Amino acid sequence: MAKINAHYSKLSGNYIFGEVADRAKVRKSTLPLISLGVGDITLPLPAACVSALIDAAKEMGDPLSYKGYGPPFGYDFLREAISQHDYNGKIAPDEIIISDGAKCDISNIQEIFCTQNRVALADPTYPVYIDTTVMAGRTRPRLKNGRYGGVTYLSCTEENGFRPRPPREHCDLVYLCSPNNPTGVAMDRELLAEWVAYAKKEGAILIYDGAYEAYIRSKDAPHSIYEIKGAEEVAIEIRSFSKSAGFTGLRLSYSVFPHALKVFDCGREHSLNALWKRRHETKYGGTPYAAQRAGAALYTPEGKKQLQAVVQTYSDNALLLRKGLQNLGLTVYGGIDAPYIWCKAPAHLTDWEFFDILLNKAAILSIPGSEFGSSGSGFLRMSAFAPRPSIEEALQRLRSAL
Amino acid sequence: MAKINAHYSKLSGNYIFGEVADRAKVRKSTLPLISLGVGDITLPLPAACVSALIDAAKEMGDPLSYKGYGPPFGYDFLREAISQHDYNGKIAPDEIIISDGAKCDISNIQEIFCTQNRVALADPTYPVYIDTTVMAGRTRPRLKNGRYGGVTYLSCTEENGFRPRPPREHCDLVYLCSPNNPTGVAMDRELLAEWVAYAKKEGAILIYDGAYEAYIRSKDAPHSIYEIKGAEEVAIEIRSFSKSAGFTGLRLSYSVFPHALKVFDCGREHSLNALWKRRHETKYGGTPYAAQRAGAALYTPEGKKQLQAVVQTYSDNALLLRKGLQNLGLTVYGGIDAPYIWCKAPAHLTDWEFFDILLNKAAILSIPGSEFGSSGSGFLRMSAFAPRPSIEEALQRLRSAL
Repeated sequence: MAKINAHYSKLSGNYIFGEVADRAKVRKSTLPLISLGVGDITLPLPAACVSALIDAAKEMGDPLSYKGYGPPFGYDFLREAISQHDYNGKIAPDEIIISDGAKCDISNIQEIFCTQNRVALADPTYPVYIDTTVMAGRTRPRLKNGRYGGVTYLSCTEENGFRPRPPREHCDLVYLCSPNNPTGVAMDRELLAEWVAYAKKEGAILIYDGAYEAYIRSKDAPHSIYEIKGAEEVAIEIRSFSKSAGFTGLRLSYSVFPHALKVFDCGREHSLNALWKRRHETKYGGTPYAAQRAGAALYTPEGKKQLQAVVQTYSDNALLLRKGLQNLGLTVYGGIDAPYIWCKAPAHLTDWEFFDILLNKAAILSIPGSEFGSSGSGFLRMSAFAPRPSIEEALQRLRSAL
Repeated sequence: MAKINAHYSKLSGNYIFGEVADRAKVRKSTLPLISLGVGDITLPLPAACVSALIDAAKEMGDPLSYKGYGPPFGYDFLREAISQHDYNGKIAPDEIIISDGAKCDISNIQEIFCTQNRVALADPTYPVYIDTTVMAGRTRPRLKNGRYGGVTYLSCTEENGFRPRPPREHCDLVYLCSPNNPTGVAMDRELLAEWVAYAKKEGAILIYDGAYEAYIRSKDAPHSIYEIKGAEEVAIEIRSFSKSAGFTGLRLSYSVFPHALKVFDCGREHSLNALWKRRHETKYGGTPYAAQRAGAALYTPEGKKQLQAVVQTYSDNALLLRKGLQNLGLTVYGGIDAPYIWCKAPAHLTDWEFFDILLNKAAILSIPGSEFGSSGSGFLRMSAFAPRPSIEEALQRLRSAL
């Protein structure tokens, strides 16, 4: 009799946000819903990407230029553009592996490691880190507080400014997300250096999720973990085109596996770059040519300008939302280096109660912080990806509702 | 200290065909190379798909019609078209889950099962089945003959017409590929019924890879495993647009998880449809909107005609190659229901020796059967995806060389 992966039964019901969607359906307000919930984009693709997609489609229809299987790790034209523009040539094209979404790489990366490895992750956290850790059998069952046994949680609280420091205990794989989803806070250079030192001391690997890198404005927040000396020996960096250029429906991302990143195990040294390539080539069919062409278009002068305009729009939204909420007397974090606001519920309310007030009095959809982990209780995540008029309207409604 | 997935070290060197490529580089013939090797397409995308891609690109650039995250299991327009056209409405849209390649689903599907499950697969086999079984830790180390311990190999030989029957022993997960890669032979109704009966008796799950379904011509070869009574209780079916419509560089596939497909484990019944959806939603970001539009375009009257023309071209190539090789006195299998020819090496030659003769005397690239498993020894796989003039030229060269 075939048996299922029993670790799946440790998971809580749905992937995420099921309860949020259910409550939105039965909200009391008759106003049209303003969604500051799931972080999906609301601006169209930049024109340079649209042109590239159309050109690629035409190439695919021409017997002289159609493309079949692409190079398994991505086309050189894209890997070279990333190397040059995102890393100033300090990361080689061969260290960059193209994929169809940070989410996939973030979760699939666990496959190349031993299932006994101990995982550390933030609380609150992007749910994919913990759910895939559970699915892979790297946790014990779920506890009453929603946490899982066998995992090291890095609490992100007002006390530590939502910037978790390395734990005292040993961990093997550490998920770090900066700028952070859901808190909207970026780590600074000093803290990242502490993490790199921890990884070196413990022989740990940092899985550095830089999906929101384009939103960094603070000078002391590195754009890449590789700005920290020695990070190339301990860190994988994952980047996405989803939240910067609006590729959530087009799917393009990349992961950096420096050649210096090695693990000594079973009596010899293993290159994680080589291990990941073996996994990628065997289990993945490659990223569509057209998506890679659209990505490369963002590195042209025209594309860069258009990308910048998109990011600026969402960044401005975030600042507007942040200030507006502060003016209402609310305590607010994030929104400076990220398109997310981490808004504290007034003292007498839980996050779900505050969520319900926003939903039922103002038809504003947010996400209760406890959906991201127990340390998220008492906060709401609000997304700045909504259109500008919606953000303005939301603030106006809140002025009446609160 | 982080530890690696030690199962990776059981794998043989590269993914596949490394040696084939190396020998091609140092071939003795000065003729231009004709590749009948890796099964990549050589015709451009059908015009209906190109139009759909261009329309989708324009939609993505328009604030009124851009698409962000799609529905996690695929757009209804595509799932409904598949339900209606590929399954005559007998499989519901909700049982169809869209993905970006059969290769991904074939390998990722293992995640929802217990690692102790015993896998059965053909020998010779599509390398992804065995490599991902090794990576997941479902085998013992590699033996001298290239096989792995702990796996049930289903030998496909001339004696059984390359149609393996169920084994006497118990297995939990059975990979079946029909029409088969690499042998090019399709299973008939009677044999598939035996497999469904075996799965029911053993509580096994059939992972039925129908990537080459479009090439079936034999009347007794079912186009879908669900033509067999009761198969919906034991089988997952995986289909691809790669080899029919030439989507190898565009990436689109789907998997069917019937609601009737259940596993009783840990004291209760589990729906594999639900388990796979949980996996897909958590670890996968969705298939690009444009690729789904291109796929749906193949179900329009115009698209159907264009698809048929592509398949007919490759099918005709296969028959031409088959007959041409037979006329040279060679023993040949496959090529009737699949775009692959399984050509027996002359009695005194190994497959690698025969491969070298073709390569060095005629500059024809094939793939030695032993690359697909020990039972593939003595055969070459030749792909009919090459352009017609290349197939004709190859036959002409062989007439001089052999």
